[in-house]
Amino acid sequence: MFTFTPIGYVRSSYKTTQEIPKGLGAEHKAEGRLEILPEFEAGLTDIEGFSHLFVIWIFDRSEGFDLLGTPPSDNRAHGVFATRSPRRPNPIGLSVVELLGRKGTVLHVRGLDMLDGTPILDIKPYLSSIPTESLRRGWLAEAEARKQK
Amino acid sequence: MFTFTPIGYVRSSYKTTQEIPKGLGAEHKAEGRLEILPEFEAGLTDIEGFSHLFVIWIFDRSEGFDLLGTPPSDNRAHGVFATRSPRRPNPIGLSVVELLGRKGTVLHVRGLDMLDGTPILDIKPYLSSIPTESLRRGWLAEAEARKQK
Repeated sequence: MFTFTPIGYVRSSYKTTQEIPKGLGAEHKAEGRLEILPEFEAGLTDIEGFSHLFVIWIFDRSEGFDLLGTPPSDNRAHGVFATRSPRRPNPIGLSVVELLGRKGTVLHVRGLDMLDGTPILDIKPYLSSIPTESLRRGWLAEAEARKQK
Repeated sequence: MFTFTPIGYVRSSYKTTQEIPKGLGAEHKAEGRLEILPEFEAGLTDIEGFSHLFVIWIFDRSEGFDLLGTPPSDNRAHGVFATRSPRRPNPIGLSVVELLGRKGTVLHVRGLDMLDGTPILDIKPYLSSIPTESLRRGWLAEAEARKQK
């Protein structure tokens, strides 16, 4: 067992999960803040140079998990590790956000899909992308194709 | 505080951190396996459809953290949240791997940068990329530019 303590918290306009865009074509354009605890401020040095960040966080209002579940983007069930469901064996979330600016321990970001108050475990620079032409998106691409028919 | 239990373990040829390619131009082409525990097998349903996966794991052989550190790719110090240093407040690792195939609870992957035996916390599908032209890579791009001079 491994124990983690938040390094900060998300400040967003989302108070309930119903408010967060989901499903096919959902866009995450919401702006908000990542408020890092004062004792970790030095750890943010030079982060302004990066346009995008990985944020690793906790689905702290999710309880239990389902190994199979039907995501909002499909009408068929898929394995939890092939989805971004909050009901995971370890309820860890991962988001890519655009860094708009930093003031001290506060990061202003765009692209939030987390509830207000969500605990943050880690932040890492987003360094490289898989070229679109070599990316396969499994059941999600199939669900999109079915929708377009 | 949040407590997590591994869903599986990495099998790689890396027995020590010295063996893992690091620094500017380091390429992660190593093949290996993600061995998921039998009780989570159903959670892997349909994962074969994805070409790339996010793997969230634990730097289980790292102790303590440094808010500022000099990464192998530079000769200047940067904040821990602007680097991929293993010495983080929460020692969580994030890797993108290419999924080569699945046999039951074993995922064959390429692009490992973890030590053999590394505990895995979560796996998620890699769904989208930031277009290269909108990606800024901060101190890393500067370190690369200095090296080329």
